[in-house]
Amino acid sequence: MAATVKEGDNTEAEQIVNPWEVASSRGKIDYDKLIDKFGCQRLDKSLIDRVERLTGRPPHVFLRRSVFFAHRDLNDILDAYEKGDKFYLYTGRGPSSEALHLGHLIPFMFTKYLQDAFKVPLVIQLTDDEKCMWKNLTVEESQRLARENAKDIIACGFDISKTFIFSDFDYVGGAFYKNMVKVSKCVTYNKVVGIFGFTGEDHIGKISFPPVQAVPSFPSSFPHLFPGKDSLRCLIPCAIDQDPYFRMTRDVAPRLGYQKPALIESTFFPALQGETGKMSASDPNSAIYVTDSGKDIKNKINKYAFSGGQDSIENHRKYGANLEVDIPVKYLGFFLDDDAELEHIRTEYGAGRMLTGEVKKRLTEVLTDIVERHRRARAAVTDEMVDAFMAVRPLPNMFS
Amino acid sequence: MAATVKEGDNTEAEQIVNPWEVASSRGKIDYDKLIDKFGCQRLDKSLIDRVERLTGRPPHVFLRRSVFFAHRDLNDILDAYEKGDKFYLYTGRGPSSEALHLGHLIPFMFTKYLQDAFKVPLVIQLTDDEKCMWKNLTVEESQRLARENAKDIIACGFDISKTFIFSDFDYVGGAFYKNMVKVSKCVTYNKVVGIFGFTGEDHIGKISFPPVQAVPSFPSSFPHLFPGKDSLRCLIPCAIDQDPYFRMTRDVAPRLGYQKPALIESTFFPALQGETGKMSASDPNSAIYVTDSGKDIKNKINKYAFSGGQDSIENHRKYGANLEVDIPVKYLGFFLDDDAELEHIRTEYGAGRMLTGEVKKRLTEVLTDIVERHRRARAAVTDEMVDAFMAVRPLPNMFS
Repeated sequence: MAATVKEGDNTEAEQIVNPWEVASSRGKIDYDKLIDKFGCQRLDKSLIDRVERLTGRPPHVFLRRSVFFAHRDLNDILDAYEKGDKFYLYTGRGPSSEALHLGHLIPFMFTKYLQDAFKVPLVIQLTDDEKCMWKNLTVEESQRLARENAKDIIACGFDISKTFIFSDFDYVGGAFYKNMVKVSKCVTYNKVVGIFGFTGEDHIGKISFPPVQAVPSFPSSFPHLFPGKDSLRCLIPCAIDQDPYFRMTRDVAPRLGYQKPALIESTFFPALQGETGKMSASDPNSAIYVTDSGKDIKNKINKYAFSGGQDSIENHRKYGANLEVDIPVKYLGFFLDDDAELEHIRTEYGAGRMLTGEVKKRLTEVLTDIVERHRRARAAVTDEMVDAFMAVRPLPNMFS
Repeated sequence: MAATVKEGDNTEAEQIVNPWEVASSRGKIDYDKLIDKFGCQRLDKSLIDRVERLTGRPPHVFLRRSVFFAHRDLNDILDAYEKGDKFYLYTGRGPSSEALHLGHLIPFMFTKYLQDAFKVPLVIQLTDDEKCMWKNLTVEESQRLARENAKDIIACGFDISKTFIFSDFDYVGGAFYKNMVKVSKCVTYNKVVGIFGFTGEDHIGKISFPPVQAVPSFPSSFPHLFPGKDSLRCLIPCAIDQDPYFRMTRDVAPRLGYQKPALIESTFFPALQGETGKMSASDPNSAIYVTDSGKDIKNKINKYAFSGGQDSIENHRKYGANLEVDIPVKYLGFFLDDDAELEHIRTEYGAGRMLTGEVKKRLTEVLTDIVERHRRARAAVTDEMVDAFMAVRPLPNMFS
C-alpha cells in the first residue's frame, strides 16, 4: 500500500510518500527529490511576489517560509485571475481522530488566507468514507468524527458565505456520483496500483476510493454552487502526500473535458521528536493537540521537542545549536509570524548565545497563544453553525 | 473478464456464465452442472407445491415449466412467510438498450406474479452506472435508457403502492452509499477477480460496481421504505448469470450483521437461432422485441426460429420433430399458459402429425398477443407515472 519513491542509486535512501504513509530510511524527507519524482514545480520567489502583487497583501508566513513549497499550474490560475477569471479552492480532511494537532491545522490556516486574499469560494471534503475503510471505524463513528473535525475547521475562521463543508457519507450521490463513475471509467486497476501501491489483498473499497477524492476538483460535482460553470478552475492547497490523488485527477480531467485542478503543496509538519515524517496519532506525545492545556504544551515542548542545542552549556556557548535538526526553531518557523524575531532567534541560538530553554519558552508562548485562540473559537462553534456550513445550498456571494 | 466454469474432465466442454458473458463450447448451457458449480439448489416439485399452497394460487407457468429452476434459501423465506414474517422482492435491469426483448421481460413477468401472490413490496434497480461503464454510454444516455426501460417495466403491471423503481445515478448516496462502503470493506480485489474474472487492465469502475448491485439486498439501503426493519428478508428473482453478485453478497452479509438474500433463478431465454446462450442486442433478428409489429414477429419466427422439424414432409411424418432443439416449442414452453395445449402440440409435433408451420403459426399468435398487450400497456405509461414509481417515498400499504 505504499507508492515507493526509489532513488536512482540503490545505495541511497528510499522515500515512501503516499496518502497513507510517509517514511524515509534516512529519517528526513528529501523534498527536492520528491518534486522531481512527482513532477510538480517548486514554488519560487517570483511566484510568491506575484501572489503578493495580485492580492495586495503580504504573503502568508507559510509562503514566506516555504511550508507551501511546491505547486502544479499555480501560474495558470494566477494568469486567469489577473484577467478577472475567478477560481475555487478545494481542501479536505480524513476524520480519523477526535482532536486535531497543529499539523492538521496548517492546510486550513493557509486555505483561510487564500480565501480571504483571493475572495473565492471553498469546498472542504470530510472523507469519512475513507477513514471508515482505512481505519476500520464504524460508519457512525466516522460520521461523528467528521462533525467534530468540522467544528475545528470552522474555528479557523472560514467565511460561511463562501464555504461549503461536506461529508462523503452525506454528500456522495447525484452529480458527484456521476463524476465518480466518469473518473472510474478512465482509471485501470493497474494504474491505481502504480499510483497508490495497492495489492490484490486490499479490499475493493480502497480501490474505489481515489475517484471520491478526485471529483471535488470538478465544479460540476457541486451543481448547487457552480451551475453552468464547468470551466471554473480549482486550486487545491494540501500536503504533498496527497499529490498522487491529483496526479490521477489531472491525468483524467482532459479526457472528461474538464479543467485540470491546480495544486499548492506543503511539506509535512514534523513530530516533536524530530523530522521523520508526519506525526502519529498513536503517540499523543509526538504532537501538540488543539485540546492541550498550556501546561500540556509546556511539558511536551520541554520534555519531547528534539533540541539541536549542545549537551553542556559550555559546548553550547562554543559550538552553537544545530538549527537543521532543532524542532523548537522549526516550529517557530511555522508559527512565529515576525520575520525579524525569528531571524534574531536563529542567529543567537545558532551562535550559542541563546539557550534551548529560552527558545522553548518562546515557542511555548507562541503555541499556547494559537491553541488558546483556537479553543475559544471552537467553543463558539455551535451545532447550528456546523449544519449551516454543511447545508447543500447556493452561495450567491461566493466571489464578492 | 469471464468467470470460467471449468468441467472436471478436460475433454468435456467449457461453460462461461457470468453477468456479462454466457457461452458454452457445446452450444448449450448445462444447467445441472451450473447448479453444482455455483452451489445453489434445484427448485423441485415439493417447493413449487409449497408456493402454491402458501399463496393459494396456481404456480406461475415459469415455475411449472422450470424456467425458474434454481434457488438459494427459498425454503427459509417460505418458512418465515408461513409464520407471518413478510419479505421484500428485489430485481433489476441494466439499461443498455432502448427496446426490450421477450427475454428481458421474463424476470419482470415473474416478479409481478410473486408480488401479487405474496403481497410484498418490491425494489427495482436500474443500473445505469453499470451500463455507462461497461457499454461506454454517456451518463445522460444511460439515464435516458433507464427511464425508457422503466416504462416497459411499469407496463408489466406492478403495483405502485408496493413498488419502488430507482436508477443508481439518482439514488446512490446516503444509507445506500454507506452500505456500499460496508460491503466494499469486506471484499478484496483478489476475491472479485475470483468471482467475476476482472483483470488488471479493467477500470476501477468495474471493480467498484459489485457492491452497488449487492446492497439493495439489505433493507437498510432503503430507509424511506424499511425504517427499523433491518431483519426483513429479501428474495431476488433473476437469471442465473447474476448469481455471482449474490454469492458475494451472501458471503458478506453475516459479517455486517445482515440477513443473506434468498434467490430464485431462471435459465436463459434462447435466441431464435437456437439455444446457444442469451440473445444478442447486436443482432435484431436473434430476438422478438416488444417493439416488433405483428408482421415483424411473423417474419422473424418463420425465417429465423430454429426448427426441430425434418427437412421434408415425408421425413417429418416418418420421424417427427426433434423437440430438444426446436425453438418454437421452447418459446411456447415459456409463453403458452395452457398446459394441455402445450402437451398436445409436443405430442403431435414430436410424432410428425403436426408440421413446423402449424407450430410457428400458433407461436406467432401467442407472441403477437403478448407483445400487443405490452405495447398497449406501455403506451399508457406516462412520464408522471415514471416519476411516481421512482419517487423516494414511504409505501405505507406495501404489505397489504
